[in-house]
Amino acid sequence: MINSGNLALFTDLYELTMGQSYFESWNVKASFELFVRRLPPNRGYLIAAGLEDVCNYLLKFRFEEDDLEFLRRREFKEEFLDFLRGIRFTGDVWALPEGELVFPNEPIIRVTAPIIEAQIFETFIINAVNFQTLIATKASRIVNSAKNRPIIDFGSRRAHGVDAGLKAARASYIGGCIGTSNVLAGKIYNIPIFGTMAHSYIEAFPSEKEAFKTWIKSWGTDTVLLVDTYDTLRGVKNAIEAVEELTGRNELKGIRMDSGDMVTLSREARRILNAAGFLSTKIFVSGGLDEYVIDEYLSRDAEIDVFGVGSSLVTSDDAPKIDIVYKLVESEENGKLTPRMKIAENEKVTLPGAKQVFRIEENGKYRKDAIGLFDEELEGEKKLVQIFRNGELVYKLPSLDEIREKARTELQKLPEEYKRIRNPATYPVEISRKLLELTNKLRTSLV
Amino acid sequence: MINSGNLALFTDLYELTMGQSYFESWNVKASFELFVRRLPPNRGYLIAAGLEDVCNYLLKFRFEEDDLEFLRRREFKEEFLDFLRGIRFTGDVWALPEGELVFPNEPIIRVTAPIIEAQIFETFIINAVNFQTLIATKASRIVNSAKNRPIIDFGSRRAHGVDAGLKAARASYIGGCIGTSNVLAGKIYNIPIFGTMAHSYIEAFPSEKEAFKTWIKSWGTDTVLLVDTYDTLRGVKNAIEAVEELTGRNELKGIRMDSGDMVTLSREARRILNAAGFLSTKIFVSGGLDEYVIDEYLSRDAEIDVFGVGSSLVTSDDAPKIDIVYKLVESEENGKLTPRMKIAENEKVTLPGAKQVFRIEENGKYRKDAIGLFDEELEGEKKLVQIFRNGELVYKLPSLDEIREKARTELQKLPEEYKRIRNPATYPVEISRKLLELTNKLRTSLV
Repeated sequence: MINSGNLALFTDLYELTMGQSYFESWNVKASFELFVRRLPPNRGYLIAAGLEDVCNYLLKFRFEEDDLEFLRRREFKEEFLDFLRGIRFTGDVWALPEGELVFPNEPIIRVTAPIIEAQIFETFIINAVNFQTLIATKASRIVNSAKNRPIIDFGSRRAHGVDAGLKAARASYIGGCIGTSNVLAGKIYNIPIFGTMAHSYIEAFPSEKEAFKTWIKSWGTDTVLLVDTYDTLRGVKNAIEAVEELTGRNELKGIRMDSGDMVTLSREARRILNAAGFLSTKIFVSGGLDEYVIDEYLSRDAEIDVFGVGSSLVTSDDAPKIDIVYKLVESEENGKLTPRMKIAENEKVTLPGAKQVFRIEENGKYRKDAIGLFDEELEGEKKLVQIFRNGELVYKLPSLDEIREKARTELQKLPEEYKRIRNPATYPVEISRKLLELTNKLRTSLV
Repeated sequence: MINSGNLALFTDLYELTMGQSYFESWNVKASFELFVRRLPPNRGYLIAAGLEDVCNYLLKFRFEEDDLEFLRRREFKEEFLDFLRGIRFTGDVWALPEGELVFPNEPIIRVTAPIIEAQIFETFIINAVNFQTLIATKASRIVNSAKNRPIIDFGSRRAHGVDAGLKAARASYIGGCIGTSNVLAGKIYNIPIFGTMAHSYIEAFPSEKEAFKTWIKSWGTDTVLLVDTYDTLRGVKNAIEAVEELTGRNELKGIRMDSGDMVTLSREARRILNAAGFLSTKIFVSGGLDEYVIDEYLSRDAEIDVFGVGSSLVTSDDAPKIDIVYKLVESEENGKLTPRMKIAENEKVTLPGAKQVFRIEENGKYRKDAIGLFDEELEGEKKLVQIFRNGELVYKLPSLDEIREKARTELQKLPEEYKRIRNPATYPVEISRKLLELTNKLRTSLV
């Protein structure tokens, strides 16, 4: 797999400079929790994704000699480099499984480990969960806007690098897409792959109809012909004629349109196809789509059966980042993990201590969540499960299809008002009385 | 290096389905040009970046047996798979070197090769150039807004995957950042790396001053102390006291603030530092920055010396994608490369034929560009240079520092009105008379 190489140095320098200082003072045990401070604009929920990459990273984590040599030239001390040479992940991890819903302030992942380890992992853990969560969520919004019509990820070329192209394919499959155009993602993740032809194919031939005929000779009629290279409706007619002239039948899997007034063109194309007896031919649309555009097209009765969504999906362009952080919540004091928090004049206050998320269901729908201390017993289903114990993976990683199904069923339980693509309602997340008391006590002692 | 692995399958499925069809009909020679249809919002220029990755990709391109096995299971034919087994890049490439300015419709890269090859490369080439161009451009805007104060890339954790974190560090260095927090990027690209401590470090100690003292014992005073964990101005005083108590001197490289009202706090912090004799101590600011925020801070006389910019830089969050495409401009007809174009009812018309960019300078400033046919001789400097000839790299890849210097000098030649961070003027790009005539002739023949 791509990026399975050594990523120990994929970390911010301060994790290592802090590491050396802890090494020389106290490498205490500590817990960090990954959580979202607030939801991105127009989001009423997030879908957790990225945990599998975090697990693989922790399992393989180690510094190689050339990493240490690089650090040696950056004035790190020999004793600390010796320590790094032997470092492996030895801690505990609790997490929300992939496909679960996430709301603000809820721990997504908690890492408990000697503080040097836990800090070095910060950069990668945030990177992995931020991006896939962003894209799984964006995909679910697009799927929702399409009212169950299939969505295919067409975004590899505009994703932010190769790794993003692959992970976007995985995350958008979790969020409900039926597959991707990216062949390597199909190979790595065993996701269905889709695609037929580009405009350049049509242009490479003397005429559009000749291009269609050559194509059908190679691939048959269980294929999708791109009809908008020159004149879209003439393209539909050329597609029909090419099929009829070569096969004498009126069977073709689909046509695709990538430009123009999709509402009018799709309705006209449907009419032309139906009149020629191509009743089962699907209309695929791509080009500049997102949940807002799809919602508009369908509200205007566009005749579209399948959507290919690219740039907007893989960059989550209306919200390309999540305010996601990894904060110290406990550290060892006299041999015991003790709650910690950050408090500044501004609003960046964190909830101290190791926490659990309790989700309360009523009549098959989620009603509210509570965030409590980890050892509290509150109403609702406990959402964080153990992933690592003493450095050992104790969690069976689900298959991608299981994760996708989890996301689907969880979204079904979430009432509609939280899933609106614009101005969704705010899902209630309560803080338990004990956690509030602890927060207030610590706040008072620190100020 | 990361992602140097086999990326032949990092392509959209349609590139391969078209490939099989070309294989069975005519694998003619063709030229594709990569260009930007329009600039993203608030951009008056782009800085080309990503060519080095394209070169490395083309040099290493090949299908491995397990790639072919994957395609075999997807119903590709054995003869075509045999052909793919032997495929190598055999074509010509002309390109704008990295660091050059780019305007709409100007070819950034032209690939001339048998059409199967040229198509398979499309996905990776767009992916590589889109992202790094986006980030180099964003970085240059941020550097510009900071009026030559240093900018450091702090974005790895919010970049879209690992590859994006690394490439963003490279591209933002091209765009004028002085370095990155990402250690692996520092190692791979030999970019300066920066970073000291996080809030968690301060919180792990019983008091802020004790944390500072422990830090100084590890790292001395040529370091940056993070002062906003509890109360920013008290943090500044604690930093001063920690230095004075341990060293008896008033020397400290910097303090960093990551939250709060940066204008007021930075001015107060400067006053406190100066009053204590810490005149050379720099004020570093991070947290929620971009070119718009930095411009506002400085217009309100914030006392900030260095900026660390994260999420907005590495996601180019106000414009996370470029409308960049790779279009057929020529294909072989009777053994000769003949101009091609796409023309539909909408505006997605492409300029046909192989092209060159001519940039006209007057008194040390760029005045306008012309796009002409490749063999035209027009006024101005020809910007596309040859990179590959018959599959062989004939271009000496410049060092990253040379690319960065190129971007700096090119930006200096671009008049200010095109560099405004909001509503920049439109740089004039003319189409040569011959190219216009060809476009009109082809349009007429196609419609």
